[in-house]
Amino acid sequence: MQPVIDFILELEKLKAVSRKVRPLGLDRYENSAEHSWQLAMLALSLAHYAGPDIDLNRVTRMLLVHDVGEIDTGDTMVFVEGGWEQRKAAELAAAQRIFGMLPEQGAGFLELWQEFELGETAEARFAHAVDRAMPVLLNLNNNGQSWRENGISYERVVGRVAPPIKAGCPALWNYLEARLEEARERGLFGA
Amino acid sequence: MQPVIDFILELEKLKAVSRKVRPLGLDRYENSAEHSWQLAMLALSLAHYAGPDIDLNRVTRMLLVHDVGEIDTGDTMVFVEGGWEQRKAAELAAAQRIFGMLPEQGAGFLELWQEFELGETAEARFAHAVDRAMPVLLNLNNNGQSWRENGISYERVVGRVAPPIKAGCPALWNYLEARLEEARERGLFGA
Repeated sequence: MQPVIDFILELEKLKAVSRKVRPLGLDRYENSAEHSWQLAMLALSLAHYAGPDIDLNRVTRMLLVHDVGEIDTGDTMVFVEGGWEQRKAAELAAAQRIFGMLPEQGAGFLELWQEFELGETAEARFAHAVDRAMPVLLNLNNNGQSWRENGISYERVVGRVAPPIKAGCPALWNYLEARLEEARERGLFGA
Repeated sequence: MQPVIDFILELEKLKAVSRKVRPLGLDRYENSAEHSWQLAMLALSLAHYAGPDIDLNRVTRMLLVHDVGEIDTGDTMVFVEGGWEQRKAAELAAAQRIFGMLPEQGAGFLELWQEFELGETAEARFAHAVDRAMPVLLNLNNNGQSWRENGISYERVVGRVAPPIKAGCPALWNYLEARLEEARERGLFGA
């Protein structure tokens, strides 16, 4: 039992990993633990829009573990362009360290984490769509807060989020495409 | 799609529901969204200790939704004794309101929420054990912070958490029983 306890207390640290988006109505940044919860809820809420072959339980587990590597590396905005490979290597080492604490279930968690990273299965693609859509939804409803704070343009947002959301959940992209166009007209983006 | 979006933005509010426990090493209280994530992770990490008939995917979904009613009612410590029935009625009304926002998946979420509340299935009992154990684990590793801040005695903690943890995950209770006894000797409890 002790390894399970050590692992769950190690996961505490994800509550301290700060993201760039603020929860609606709150004067602080979102942390990666509450973000992971919300992604799991969004995936389950979108069941009607997932393909019939998608295993939503697997998607849910993937989303619950996908950010755990950030305990060692911190969160990086998807719009950051340099140092991608180095960062990915550091996140893998982190995932191996943390999931390695857990004798029985650790290997399965690491497998889910890697499946998400590779993004090749239908489940991973759906999970990616959900992960990319959530901060967009928050920004759309918060005057483009993290786009404006970080100088992210409409073109960069669309360039970075359209392909994965289209690939993983086309109906979600149809919805967001129109909202992003409205947001552009309202001037919600950075430089 | 719009009802799904309205629902997931309504769930934002769970990030603002403050609990009585502080995350380890952080100078703030835990919120119910990050708590829900951690419970799902603890349940999955305890797979080895769940009975073979327990559907852990169902447990996970149950834990993800179990606190959503707090969006309207706030969190109440399990040690609060008065007003139980009134609080439960308010939480049910809240769950009905919030899950009612979601045409396709809302009924399933409400069913999971009610299954947790009733605590009668093996999955609900396992979920309860996990929900009761997590704040105990945090207190054991944080000098009894919420027990001392709220004047909760060793007897009240054990009286309130032992039965559900024993019923849902006996191995977890075996572990905690010994740790709680040590904590008593170290004076980690309130009056």
